[in-house]
This record gives sequence, C-alpha cells and structure tokens, in this order.
Amino acid sequence: MDLKKLKEDLLNGKRRALAKAITLIESKNEKHKKYAKELLEGILPYTGNSIRIGISGVPGVGKSTFIEAFGLYLIEKGHKVAVLAVDPSSQITGGSVLGDKTRMEELSRRQEAFIRPSPSGDSLGGVARRSRESIFLCEAAGYDVIIIETVGVGQSEISVASMVDMFLLMQLPNAGDELQGIKRGIMEVADAIIINKADSDNLKVAELAKKQLENALSILKKQDKDWQTPVILVSALEKRGIDVVFSTIEKYVRIKKLNGTFFEKRKRQAVDWMWSVVMEGLKALLDNNQKVASVAKDMEKAVVNQVTTPSLAAEYILNRFKETLCEGGVPWRS
Amino acid sequence: MDLKKLKEDLLNGKRRALAKAITLIESKNEKHKKYAKELLEGILPYTGNSIRIGISGVPGVGKSTFIEAFGLYLIEKGHKVAVLAVDPSSQITGGSVLGDKTRMEELSRRQEAFIRPSPSGDSLGGVARRSRESIFLCEAAGYDVIIIETVGVGQSEISVASMVDMFLLMQLPNAGDELQGIKRGIMEVADAIIINKADSDNLKVAELAKKQLENALSILKKQDKDWQTPVILVSALEKRGIDVVFSTIEKYVRIKKLNGTFFEKRKRQAVDWMWSVVMEGLKALLDNNQKVASVAKDMEKAVVNQVTTPSLAAEYILNRFKETLCEGGVPWRS
Repeated sequence: MDLKKLKEDLLNGKRRALAKAITLIESKNEKHKKYAKELLEGILPYTGNSIRIGISGVPGVGKSTFIEAFGLYLIEKGHKVAVLAVDPSSQITGGSVLGDKTRMEELSRRQEAFIRPSPSGDSLGGVARRSRESIFLCEAAGYDVIIIETVGVGQSEISVASMVDMFLLMQLPNAGDELQGIKRGIMEVADAIIINKADSDNLKVAELAKKQLENALSILKKQDKDWQTPVILVSALEKRGIDVVFSTIEKYVRIKKLNGTFFEKRKRQAVDWMWSVVMEGLKALLDNNQKVASVAKDMEKAVVNQVTTPSLAAEYILNRFKETLCEGGVPWRS
Repeated sequence: MDLKKLKEDLLNGKRRALAKAITLIESKNEKHKKYAKELLEGILPYTGNSIRIGISGVPGVGKSTFIEAFGLYLIEKGHKVAVLAVDPSSQITGGSVLGDKTRMEELSRRQEAFIRPSPSGDSLGGVARRSRESIFLCEAAGYDVIIIETVGVGQSEISVASMVDMFLLMQLPNAGDELQGIKRGIMEVADAIIINKADSDNLKVAELAKKQLENALSILKKQDKDWQTPVILVSALEKRGIDVVFSTIEKYVRIKKLNGTFFEKRKRQAVDWMWSVVMEGLKALLDNNQKVASVAKDMEKAVVNQVTTPSLAAEYILNRFKETLCEGGVPWRS
C-alpha cells in the first residue's frame, strides 16, 4: 500500500482516496490498523476546518430528502459536503441508513459531495470511533460541511451529538397527541428542531406543531444563555425553509465563535472521547480477564439476591482483578 | 465497639443505633470501615421492605415544609419515615440541605421519624454511596418510607433517581415565562411533578402552570407504557394535596409491582451501582498511577492541540498503564 500517495490524493480532495482512507480506518486487519494510525496522524494538521452537523429523526421523517436538498443548496453556495451515517443497527438490518446511495441520487452524482453509509458489524462504540475518524478524513479532503446522519432510536443520537458542533432534530408536522414521541433526553441535545414535510397543503398543522414544540422548549431550561433552540418549518420536497436552516446554522456558529465556546466544545469533545476510549479499554481489560469475569457474574447474582451490597461486591471484584493482574505474567497478553 | 449490640438495637428500631450505624458507614477510619462492612452484611436480609422516594427541587420551592407535612401525614397513616439528604455541595456551604434540623421541627420530634443531614466533605460519588447504604440501615431499622431529599442543581438529582423507586420533582406555581427553568434531563427521571405553594390565593396561576407542564410532558415520549407522569397541586402550608401525593405513590407502586418492574428496577439499580463503583475503582487505579497520570495530562494536551487523535491518545495511555502495572510490584500497593 502506497500510504504517501493515499495521503497526497486525500489532501488533494480526491473522492476515491477519501473512500479508500475510510475503508482503511474501518479495517480490522492489524496491518491496516497500523497504516490507518499513520495516516490519521499525518493528516491531523489539516483537520478542523468544517462545520460538523448532526441530523437525527425517526424513519419516515424524510432525512434523505432533506439532506439531499440541503446538500445541493450548500454546493450552490460553494461548499463541499460530506454525509456520513452512524447506525449501529446496520449490522442487523444490512444498513437501514444510507445503505442505498440511490436515496440521494442527485447529490451523490455531484463532485462536491461525498456520501458514505454507516460502518457495519460493530458496536455503537466502534461505529462512533470510526465516524469520528472519518470526520477528520473528510476535513483533510477539503469538505467544509460534514453531516452526520443517525436514526432516531437509542443511544446513537447522544453519541452523534458528542461529535458535532450542532445537532438538528427532525420532526414530522404532527400536532396534539400525534406530536408525542420525542424521546426524553433528545430535546436536551437538540440545538435546533426541524419540522419537515411542512408542505403547502400541510402548513396549518405544521405551524401548530411548531407552537407546541416551542412551548415545550420554553419550559426546559436553556443550557446556554446565548442560544434558544429554534423550531424551523421545512418542506424538503418543495425546497422551502432550507435557507433558513443554513442561516440558523451560520448564526449558531457565529455566536459560538464570538463567545469562544465553539472551539471550547470541540476540545472538550476530544478530551471526553479520549477518556471514554480509555474507560472502554479498562473495562475490556476486566472483561477479558477470565477469572475476574466469572467472579463478576457471581457478584451480580449475589447483589441481585441481596447476599451482599453493591459496593462490597464491587470491592471484591476490584480486589480479585488486582490480585490476578500480575500473577504469572500480564493477563491481556495471553 | 459492640457491633452485635449495635446490630440488635438497629433491628429493634432504636433511633440512636441507626444514627450511630450511619456515622459508622460514613467514617473514613479503616477499622470503622471494617465494622461497617460487617454490619451491612449482617443487616442485609432485613432490607428492602420500604418505598424509596426521591424528592428534588430548587431552593425556595418548599421542600422542608412539604416533607414535614408529608412525613406527619405518613406517620398518622401508621408508617415510619426516614428522611435522608444528598447534597454534595454541603462540604462548601456547610450543609444547605437539612443542615438545620429545626427546619422540620415537628417531624423531628416524632419517634416514628428519623432525619439525617447530608454526609459532607466528599464527592457526589462518595455521598451517593453512603446514602445508598443509609437506605439499607433505615430499612433494617423498620422505616418503611424512605425519603431522599436533594437540591435541584447538578448531577445529584440523576444520582438520587438511580437509588429510589419513584422520583418526585417539586416546582413553584409559576406559569408562562416564569415556568422556564426545569433542567433538561430532569423531566426524564421525574415520575411525578408536584407544584407546591398552590395556596388558595394562588390557585389560578398554579392551575395554569399545571396545564403547561402537562402539555410539555405530553410531547416527551413516555419511557414506560404503564405510567404517565402526573402533575399534582399541593399546598404544604395549607396541608392540601398531601393525600393526593401519597395515593399517587401508592398507585405507582401497585402498578409497578403488578407488572413486575418494581423489583426489576431495584435489581437493575443494584447491578448498575456495583458496576459504577467498579469503574470508579478502575479509574482510581489509573489516576493513582503517577507515571500514567502524567502521561494522561500530556495526552490531554496533545489531543486539545490536535497533535494526535483521541483514540490514538487513549491507546497510548492504556499501553503505558499496562506496562507500568507489574513493574517492580503492584503500583496501587505502594
């Protein structure tokens, strides 16, 4: 493998090189991992120069249609757009998000766009790690708007929110009882809510939904004083509201850069990510220690059956872990 | 120390013994820790027979007045009530929650009540651990309603929610703009919302606040199908609504026991607690390893300055940790 050529082509913005580089960081081959590490360290100085946007919504909300319209709009404005997907369920469904590129046919034909389906066959942690690294690769290749798409189920939204500058939640224009269904905890991470399918024959109910969402948002305490989560009406089909979404993003970025929190947040995200990988590694150390794993199973049972308290059980597991660590060599090397 | 006598007195419901036992588990003295462990294991078969209720709200919402009225009501119904506080800030403020027993003067004079201020001088993790163990002690002493009070700031609410059967959020009867201020993430854990100070001269605005909160709640997806978070109007001062709070708690417990999730939740809480203590212990192992700690600092800087990626930095920290573990003995023993 000619790593130097790959890096060069990547930095020159060649789409094929970008695709190849992402395949490299997704590989589980030990040799590939080594190359991937070298490549990542080499391109790091060329990263960071983009807006990273997370987009989430339940199936049927029209994410693809919106992202296609939004992407084409951005390209017209002179941007280069990368669309990545985070879908840990794709190992089961064979890729429900972006598995089928034809969903964004027009966008995918544009040289200024790069679309990549979710890596599959891995845990959310693994998918997230590779997505974060893919963001770096896209940035090095000159993409200045990175969209991370995720399905509106489970932990993946929280994970995506922790890797982007701004998180958009997409909703259907249902009002009243039908509006019910925003997962708790998601409002917390949404920096803007997009009501899609606010088509001309649907506008009244969409406006009502907007009002209801705004009311709900007004009760929840703002996490930062400089930004109140807006609700934006969009018709991806009729291409209305797309410009409002982008001007909202621009406004958000401008405010965050002015008050200094834009890069603060990125730094915090990077450090948090580092520590979460460290903690995962420590946990794996424990899980892969066969002696301790069986002790842990027993302790779980003991705790559930109230034979011991959770903190005493934890102490016992830790002590057993410490004892076995240096017994006859280092256990994780065996 | 006569541990046998202490245990006996505790199981006989003597308040002095309970107070002494809690002091024992709060002690950092190594000998006391050993005793505490023995005591906890001894009383474990006598625990679990209570309703554990978390109550949270911002300062000024009237938590003490409510808990006093609620406690007296419960005693009249034949219950024994323990009130514990979780306030990690008490190390700074000298105990803002329950620091002053006179706040619940009448309740504290009753033999059927036990009131304990927050343990101080520790991290939230430490405070939480000791509160969880205090719950066991109170149950062993025959208290069948345990109230865990916490201030409405920061992580302490999430921590308390993870140790109780039902979590109540207290609100002031402010409507409209003034209603703003529920921390995001808190709605998620509230099983009921109490609007306090719904006094007779304040009823109209309280009813409006109730309606607004109900609307907001209806937008958030229910986590379980069997329970919709109710909003209850209470005047602790005029002793109105107290009975509704209790009948709501009884209903909640009845439903949860019928569908089997009541003890499921407790078991899950216990196992989660065990693992969180294990992970804290692993983290401490890493933090107390001087060589690794300085490496970690360097890596944080490298990540922030984009010299390396977070996952490569994490890998480096873990490798360094593994290397040092068995070098010249076990590092955590030194």
